[in-house]
Amino acid sequence: MAVIDKIRQLIPPLSSGYHKGQAGRVCVVGGSDEYTGAPYFSSFSALKLGADMAFVVCQPTAAVAIKSYTPDLMVHPYLRRSDDTDKTSEEIINNVAKLLPRLHVMVIGPGLSRDNMMLECAKGIIAKAKEKDLPLVIDADGLYLIQNHPEIIKGYPNAILTPNVAEFKRLCEEMKINFEDNHKDKMAGLLSQAFDGVTIVQKGQYDLISNGNEVFKVDNEGGLKRCGGQGDILTGLIATFMAWGSAYHNKLWQHDNLISPSEVPMLASYAACTLTRECSRSAFKKFGRSVQTSDMINEIGPSFKKLYER
Amino acid sequence: MAVIDKIRQLIPPLSSGYHKGQAGRVCVVGGSDEYTGAPYFSSFSALKLGADMAFVVCQPTAAVAIKSYTPDLMVHPYLRRSDDTDKTSEEIINNVAKLLPRLHVMVIGPGLSRDNMMLECAKGIIAKAKEKDLPLVIDADGLYLIQNHPEIIKGYPNAILTPNVAEFKRLCEEMKINFEDNHKDKMAGLLSQAFDGVTIVQKGQYDLISNGNEVFKVDNEGGLKRCGGQGDILTGLIATFMAWGSAYHNKLWQHDNLISPSEVPMLASYAACTLTRECSRSAFKKFGRSVQTSDMINEIGPSFKKLYER
Repeated sequence: MAVIDKIRQLIPPLSSGYHKGQAGRVCVVGGSDEYTGAPYFSSFSALKLGADMAFVVCQPTAAVAIKSYTPDLMVHPYLRRSDDTDKTSEEIINNVAKLLPRLHVMVIGPGLSRDNMMLECAKGIIAKAKEKDLPLVIDADGLYLIQNHPEIIKGYPNAILTPNVAEFKRLCEEMKINFEDNHKDKMAGLLSQAFDGVTIVQKGQYDLISNGNEVFKVDNEGGLKRCGGQGDILTGLIATFMAWGSAYHNKLWQHDNLISPSEVPMLASYAACTLTRECSRSAFKKFGRSVQTSDMINEIGPSFKKLYER
Repeated sequence: MAVIDKIRQLIPPLSSGYHKGQAGRVCVVGGSDEYTGAPYFSSFSALKLGADMAFVVCQPTAAVAIKSYTPDLMVHPYLRRSDDTDKTSEEIINNVAKLLPRLHVMVIGPGLSRDNMMLECAKGIIAKAKEKDLPLVIDADGLYLIQNHPEIIKGYPNAILTPNVAEFKRLCEEMKINFEDNHKDKMAGLLSQAFDGVTIVQKGQYDLISNGNEVFKVDNEGGLKRCGGQGDILTGLIATFMAWGSAYHNKLWQHDNLISPSEVPMLASYAACTLTRECSRSAFKKFGRSVQTSDMINEIGPSFKKLYER
């Protein structure tokens, strides 16, 4: 079966028989004094693709701003910086852990910042999520955490890392992989193997996705503006496809079980990469150099219809 | 080569080979308890023209409001007023200085306020930016700072001051230049010379731009509403053109090197003045007396296409 047909298998049918949340409950951990756009782009993209519910876990100051972008998100102001002393990291981690039974997937990192307390919380949340076998998409400052503590994600098959050019090189360095430009297309596979099969989404002029066994290449046309935030759209979209993968394997609908759970991270990443590029292309076509990441989010629905809707 | 053709040389081509940030990283220092529109207009105009990333550095209360205008900005709540005592000006300046290696250009002043601590921080940030040869666009309360401490910018060729009528007169007074209405068109040149070649953008019914050697006059048709905020659009647009000038001289793309670095401030100012007037004209045509600065920002893309896009 072609990759695109496999992806179509994972898309929940639209049915009046379902209830709230069954088509995806996503949580983004990130959002700090400095960064609020990134967790918004990620979580709202998840909703725009079709997740039923999206949570953001962030600092209180970030929460007010993110709530103001849209009332459609549930924004929980649980995280704290090092200079806040009203809560210990253990309290914060336990607080966030209470959300876990309600979730299909977590995105860790958009707008997290590199504050020590914020990183420590993220680390503890990852550990709790692993106990529940929850799919994890890790990006941005979450990758900075992984770069410094690769052991927390190594060998966890439900994790997807989404490094850009600079982040990819730093991860390779940390994992003692010699980055070679003339073997660029093999690097994602090598990095995945170094992480014992964690899925790697290597973003760039074209995207390479690998779980160490196979490699998907994504090179459909994107826009020509490199504004900050496009990577956040990608993580939100991956998250929704991962949630749909869980719904598929929980038999939310009748199907022939043609897709195995181990295939889902590669398929979700492929689907999200193609879709992000199409959103970027069509928003760029409308707005040219003026295009913003906000504009691209409006293209998620039409782009999904064009590429994947049956 | 005509000025307009020189400006076209500086515009980065659109290419899938670039990565995030290469087409411009801009930072606006301003935004206080009292003023949040000005830094938003400036930074968002920079994005709408085509900068890849824009930061705002401001007070915490201002940050929440500015973030809420759009998730496309990165708003850092680093500045403090005199009556806040949790941080010293040195700590604040050092915090902001950490951003400098990531920037092509800084705008200092929109919504800064005249609080002593805010001005002291701006002064320290200017000193740090000068150490890195970073282009500086100074407006509004930043000009109040310059008026009281002209030595901090005098002789820095990478600085552009954008005074309105009142600010221009005060700067002339401070620099012991006798303002004469019947020699109005020579005043920008004289003021630039008094600052040892800092570029002066004298805004008015028509705009005069001078680096002390030559004078550009900008008099294309603008709108007939004088709402607050149009000057902030101008600073954001100058900033993006300055960032493009840096990208040009960093050889982001192949070119014949026809523009020298010393020409860029005059060209960037000319391009931004013509574009601001065209945005104002076309928004005014749509909305008449009801027109707002927010409406003008929506005209940046189409106006740029009309005047400059090749």
